[in-house]
Amino acid sequence: MSRGILTVISGFSGSGKGTIMKALLERHQNYALSVSATTRSPREGEVDGREYFFKTKEEFQEMISKNQFIEYAQYVDHYYGTPRGYVERCLSEGRDVILEIEVQGARKVKEMIPEAVLVFVTPPSARELRERLIGRGTETMEVIESRLSRASEEAAAMKDYDYLLINDDLDQCVEAFHELIQSERCKMERNREFQEKIQEELKEFLKGE
Amino acid sequence: MSRGILTVISGFSGSGKGTIMKALLERHQNYALSVSATTRSPREGEVDGREYFFKTKEEFQEMISKNQFIEYAQYVDHYYGTPRGYVERCLSEGRDVILEIEVQGARKVKEMIPEAVLVFVTPPSARELRERLIGRGTETMEVIESRLSRASEEAAAMKDYDYLLINDDLDQCVEAFHELIQSERCKMERNREFQEKIQEELKEFLKGE
Repeated sequence: MSRGILTVISGFSGSGKGTIMKALLERHQNYALSVSATTRSPREGEVDGREYFFKTKEEFQEMISKNQFIEYAQYVDHYYGTPRGYVERCLSEGRDVILEIEVQGARKVKEMIPEAVLVFVTPPSARELRERLIGRGTETMEVIESRLSRASEEAAAMKDYDYLLINDDLDQCVEAFHELIQSERCKMERNREFQEKIQEELKEFLKGE
Repeated sequence: MSRGILTVISGFSGSGKGTIMKALLERHQNYALSVSATTRSPREGEVDGREYFFKTKEEFQEMISKNQFIEYAQYVDHYYGTPRGYVERCLSEGRDVILEIEVQGARKVKEMIPEAVLVFVTPPSARELRERLIGRGTETMEVIESRLSRASEEAAAMKDYDYLLINDDLDQCVEAFHELIQSERCKMERNREFQEKIQEELKEFLKGE
């Protein structure tokens, strides 16, 4: 069985990446969503292993020391990270794994796993992005500024991504996302084994004639 | 309008690439097949501008000197080449252009136009490739040897291609071909303009707040 494709999805706030992911997982069977680990406490309704793997600080730090994260980061008082074990298990079963993480995490994943596919989701225009960032005119100056400056940072990181997914029509966007992941399976560098086998066998045939 | 994608398709003899191309052009409207130029005489039923652009040796050489070919080669007594003008016109109209050429030509196209997408088509296994190359047992030793050695050369060139297309089921193969070309439109490096515009506008918004 061929190994699954690891895809990282990031995007501007309001790009609709959550909705895209949900639709993708509903429509196509082969995808697995990676579940993050965190040291923050579960909120009401959150289930261990579904929303997050909930860990103590000591457990999390032990996982770090054992190199059990693809990437992790600390926000305020808590750790968040992508456990390697689950992702690795899904990929080796041939499932395509999706990580929804922000731009710094995406960069770390690409360094660690160069064959990971990085996809950035964006609203169809700067105008629409602006509307979503500024909100309905009820936000404080501070909130707007922080959103704009975050988006500006994210825009600067877009160039490190492999694909740009423009979320204009949700249906089309979900299918384009699915198709680009599946097309990655045809990449020559993911088919070295096939390629070497055919080369080897042709040499044998030539000797045999 | 966004520029079309230039795709080169090559493949082992018997890989079915002709059939794939025909089906692709029938099913999807946005593709244009590049027509080669040649100095050989038209055969019965061949129409200038459909099978080939038929040129005199002098005309062909003048086109070479004016850099009007993406790639060209000489086989036995005749020249064959891909005229730049037609390809360029289609791409700028947003049409996706397909060139069906052999491995040396494909390499030249990639050098000249790095954003070209190189796709190699193969039967699903070495065993099946062997059967197609050896034929029905009625071929001379010489014919078989020449096919095997050509295939062996082609196999060595596969690594220079971007994608490997395994022709197991024709329908699936045509759709996979279509999807990989369309996914190329989402590649980040093909969307620099969008990316720069969003970055620019976010800076403006930040200044404006």
